[in-house]
Amino acid sequence: MDELLLIPGPTPVPAPVREAGARPMTNHRSEAFARVLRNVLDGVAVLYGTRQAVLPYACSGTGVLEAAVVNTLSPGDEILALSCGAFGNRFARIAQAYGAEVTRVEVEWGQGIPPERLEAELRQKPYRAVLLTHNETSTGVQNDLQALAQARGDHPALLLVDAVSSLGAVPVEMDSLGLDVVVTASQKALGCPPGVGFLSASPRAWEAYQKARMPRYYWDMGLLAEALRAPLAQTPFTPAVSVFFSLEESLRLLQQEGLSAVYERHRRLSQATRAGVEALGLRPVADPRWASWTVTAVWAPEGVSVGALVGRLRAEHGVVVAGGQGKLEGRVFRIGHLGYVYPEDVLRCLEALGAVLADLGVRVDPRAGVEAAARVFGARAVTA
Amino acid sequence: MDELLLIPGPTPVPAPVREAGARPMTNHRSEAFARVLRNVLDGVAVLYGTRQAVLPYACSGTGVLEAAVVNTLSPGDEILALSCGAFGNRFARIAQAYGAEVTRVEVEWGQGIPPERLEAELRQKPYRAVLLTHNETSTGVQNDLQALAQARGDHPALLLVDAVSSLGAVPVEMDSLGLDVVVTASQKALGCPPGVGFLSASPRAWEAYQKARMPRYYWDMGLLAEALRAPLAQTPFTPAVSVFFSLEESLRLLQQEGLSAVYERHRRLSQATRAGVEALGLRPVADPRWASWTVTAVWAPEGVSVGALVGRLRAEHGVVVAGGQGKLEGRVFRIGHLGYVYPEDVLRCLEALGAVLADLGVRVDPRAGVEAAARVFGARAVTA
Repeated sequence: MDELLLIPGPTPVPAPVREAGARPMTNHRSEAFARVLRNVLDGVAVLYGTRQAVLPYACSGTGVLEAAVVNTLSPGDEILALSCGAFGNRFARIAQAYGAEVTRVEVEWGQGIPPERLEAELRQKPYRAVLLTHNETSTGVQNDLQALAQARGDHPALLLVDAVSSLGAVPVEMDSLGLDVVVTASQKALGCPPGVGFLSASPRAWEAYQKARMPRYYWDMGLLAEALRAPLAQTPFTPAVSVFFSLEESLRLLQQEGLSAVYERHRRLSQATRAGVEALGLRPVADPRWASWTVTAVWAPEGVSVGALVGRLRAEHGVVVAGGQGKLEGRVFRIGHLGYVYPEDVLRCLEALGAVLADLGVRVDPRAGVEAAARVFGARAVTA
Repeated sequence: MDELLLIPGPTPVPAPVREAGARPMTNHRSEAFARVLRNVLDGVAVLYGTRQAVLPYACSGTGVLEAAVVNTLSPGDEILALSCGAFGNRFARIAQAYGAEVTRVEVEWGQGIPPERLEAELRQKPYRAVLLTHNETSTGVQNDLQALAQARGDHPALLLVDAVSSLGAVPVEMDSLGLDVVVTASQKALGCPPGVGFLSASPRAWEAYQKARMPRYYWDMGLLAEALRAPLAQTPFTPAVSVFFSLEESLRLLQQEGLSAVYERHRRLSQATRAGVEALGLRPVADPRWASWTVTAVWAPEGVSVGALVGRLRAEHGVVVAGGQGKLEGRVFRIGHLGYVYPEDVLRCLEALGAVLADLGVRVDPRAGVEAAARVFGARAVTA
């Protein structure tokens, strides 16, 4: 049985992207690899909506969260951490680990950050930075980046944005929103193996970098930018070469589909997934105002073990979804619908979910989910 | 023309290892991936010669150098950095970046660290740790790990060892030598794509970890060890999944060859390479006492540009060697002979080198190098 990977990252990697990653190893300090680097960084910059340099690290998403913090801040800095889930908490913990004075604004899990909350909080203290999770993977909440950026207004606090599970699936528009640092990673919307994290910094963030005193070496964005600007563009430390080969191919595929089509696909996958699980009598964790385009977290029905549900979806239907994280562990399951995920994948998932729920004794029409989702996708998808 | 990659990392990745890396993406928190993790970490532990846990990070070699420092030390700690080249200097700079008080012992590039030098230095100050580069990739110097470990003796300083370009090609024997932290990476002797770094720590290093106050989050070895010990073994942050697939296959190949055969192959490759370049009238950078088994750095002959030499080797013969690093840039070239490199590769390299030197007007018998190397390999290799 073909495994259908629907966790919120790593996401499915299409065969041509995997095959590109299997090309013979090459010298990472060569004209040929400099071209790969350039293609990838230029392509990712388009997804960022930035004219600033995009800097690649060999790391996972958490690595670039750390890079965002240590490149712009100093121990003792007053930081505002906006948290609506496990990843918001992680961002805050990283800043604390490096000695920042962190004030956490937490909202109920399932809710997003109300922009007025940010506005009010910024009036309280001369914060140096705001930590924001664009898309909170643990709850399936997608914050309103534009409204939050506006709420920051002309306050001097830097806006550091975790866009790990959004960028490439949801518009980010770093420059026009005035975001100061935006980070993401290869294994989410970009549909590549994990191993490369990206960071881009605004001119204001580069100014902050000059004064930032948190210790750094591996994450030093100045070293990276300098090496990339050299006559032979390169990274200061060995990059994850095979992931770059994959990224180059994946960006080609995304450009082929067209960025607005990619965004629209994710928006519809999200709508269909929510419609489907609701038709099966289940309740998404996220308030519909903040429903994520890339992941839907769903409360397990009364009396049904998340472990059994997730295990049977995988064992009997080959559908791999994720359990809960942090305080939602054992209470929710999560369907990732980002990267190379298509309507037929969501339909297969909902069909399997209906069948497993019925098998587990939940009183439900097992076809209700797939039918509701198909209606969202429209006639084309149903007959596909 | 087939490209022959003979830089000191990334090293050639054999087709089955690349193909393993191209397997469909999978859930990194699953029984199936836990088995991959376990196989890889157990296999690498054998190469380490340790019964301690081997911890994997998504990063390159420099990342695990940083991990070695921040997990065991505190700002203000007196550290002794033994440096015989660019990577020794890097290790020292990382410790400085995190606020250690670093005393550098530097030897002439091309020399190794004399054990008596370490012994004498340890009598000067109550050092908390010694930073040591086992194999200095910039000069092709391989330090005598056993003698240096003995020179440390019962001094309480931790011995932190950069084994990035040695482990898997040269015996390390972490436990029996009493090394405290040993780090390495996937793209050197392990013959995999870059993206995974490894760290293992002695019980003494784990004690130091409890008191170490350098800030850390991504590199926190306690988080890693805890997640790996969980009922479902995993990493706290997303691992470089495709590199793990490759590592599993590569370790299988290395086990098939047999560890002592692997070491012996590297020792002979090194001898043959040195004999070959010397027969071509060239001088290796490393004093023969410290000739590295994995990389040979060679002074460019008078009047020959390293750029031209390296460029023509690649363009005309498909042989990719590296230029110099740090203060040796433009003065030396480096032949990597680690990982999946065999006698025929070294012979092809020396044949090409002889031809290019002759073309560049150097008075030399262009076959002298390949013939000298063949004599080292013995009749079997010559007729192969």
